[in-house]
Amino acid sequence: MSDTPNPDLPFLGVLGGMGPLASAQFMLRLTLLTPATRDQDHLPAVLWSDPRVPDRTAARLSGGEDPLPWLLRGIGGLEAAGCGAIAIPCNTAHGWYDGMAAVTRLPILHIVDAAAEELARLGVSRGRIGVMGTAGTLAMRLYQERLESRGYDCIVPEPAEMEALVSPGIALVKSNRVADAYAPLAEAARILKARGAAAVVLGCTEIPLGILAGPHAEIGLPLVDTIDALALSALRWAGR
Amino acid sequence: MSDTPNPDLPFLGVLGGMGPLASAQFMLRLTLLTPATRDQDHLPAVLWSDPRVPDRTAARLSGGEDPLPWLLRGIGGLEAAGCGAIAIPCNTAHGWYDGMAAVTRLPILHIVDAAAEELARLGVSRGRIGVMGTAGTLAMRLYQERLESRGYDCIVPEPAEMEALVSPGIALVKSNRVADAYAPLAEAARILKARGAAAVVLGCTEIPLGILAGPHAEIGLPLVDTIDALALSALRWAGR
Repeated sequence: MSDTPNPDLPFLGVLGGMGPLASAQFMLRLTLLTPATRDQDHLPAVLWSDPRVPDRTAARLSGGEDPLPWLLRGIGGLEAAGCGAIAIPCNTAHGWYDGMAAVTRLPILHIVDAAAEELARLGVSRGRIGVMGTAGTLAMRLYQERLESRGYDCIVPEPAEMEALVSPGIALVKSNRVADAYAPLAEAARILKARGAAAVVLGCTEIPLGILAGPHAEIGLPLVDTIDALALSALRWAGR
Repeated sequence: MSDTPNPDLPFLGVLGGMGPLASAQFMLRLTLLTPATRDQDHLPAVLWSDPRVPDRTAARLSGGEDPLPWLLRGIGGLEAAGCGAIAIPCNTAHGWYDGMAAVTRLPILHIVDAAAEELARLGVSRGRIGVMGTAGTLAMRLYQERLESRGYDCIVPEPAEMEALVSPGIALVKSNRVADAYAPLAEAARILKARGAAAVVLGCTEIPLGILAGPHAEIGLPLVDTIDALALSALRWAGR
């Protein structure tokens, strides 16, 4: 590292607030995953944390307000701030990926591609993979299509398991009750393991916050933290 | 809370990256300290995390590059993003408070005032207070002047303790070695307690990250986490 900071280095743009705890955790993990010995070695980043973005699952499944105008406002703000790429630490928001990519010249790092690279890094390069996510993410088949095109076979929780375990676990994290979220989320992961999953992708950025708040090693299979996966993807973008 | 988000609500502007771990932790604590049951209840915020800002202590004590132009660039970015107030989760940067306040119409929440409000909330309203911080913060007497005007008597670590304990502890946090930072920082706090401090203000945002990574209750006196204090001040600004 040179001692003179480069003012022209672009910022990483982080379109966040969905939820705000997940995007704060993304910033924390981005920092901790960066090889650094002083402030000046870290990545310049701008986090646009707008928790007012309408609920993505409600928009997709029950006619709720369209989040796209709010997402585009954030992208405009990140462009104006001098960002060179955009990371979005919310899986469900990737259902509007094409609409966002159509209006910006900046690359948007795709969280499902980041998760796939993390699966490969964990040595899981084919076979049955469990995917947990919001009902919106699973209904849009965000993971299923992209992972199946890479040769994986995806399984997801049954509707009754979504209703009893995954959706309540996500809601608990969104209301700051992280420790309470562990039990239902870990149970859903165990069920996917029992159905033959070789790994489980935590395909909603609230899920790792809940699962990692408890004794997650006991679940006994590789878990892909999509917050970390996206942070590693951002570091690769920055050449770190 | 109404179900219709208000697009005109101003963002909280966070001028961060000094260090990046402290400002990420600020975003995390801001979220966890907000009474909320869903994303939409949280504060919209923009974090401008620019770790390239030249070292504040080096600028003040050894003729290093002036950080003010970098700080003003961040304030301009936060103004352009639509922020209504600015919080700076770096104590030493408050040495340039007047220079920043002179160029912006936005209120800048002062971290020392936030710490004083936290001391009062903890029931410590007068008497001897220990202050830990960077050598730059202590040399600028940022805490001493503002706390003494409120009737406190401030004591700080001796130069040899700064060199052996506090400065190395801060540097360990900045290089992501949070757990290793506990022992020297806790020892410095214990020394201040032995000299009669009724509470210790952790007046550098790296210090709570190190102290809270270990068994801090054993130190046996109230510790003011300036990250939390500033987050609570921001929530008061937002009327939460």
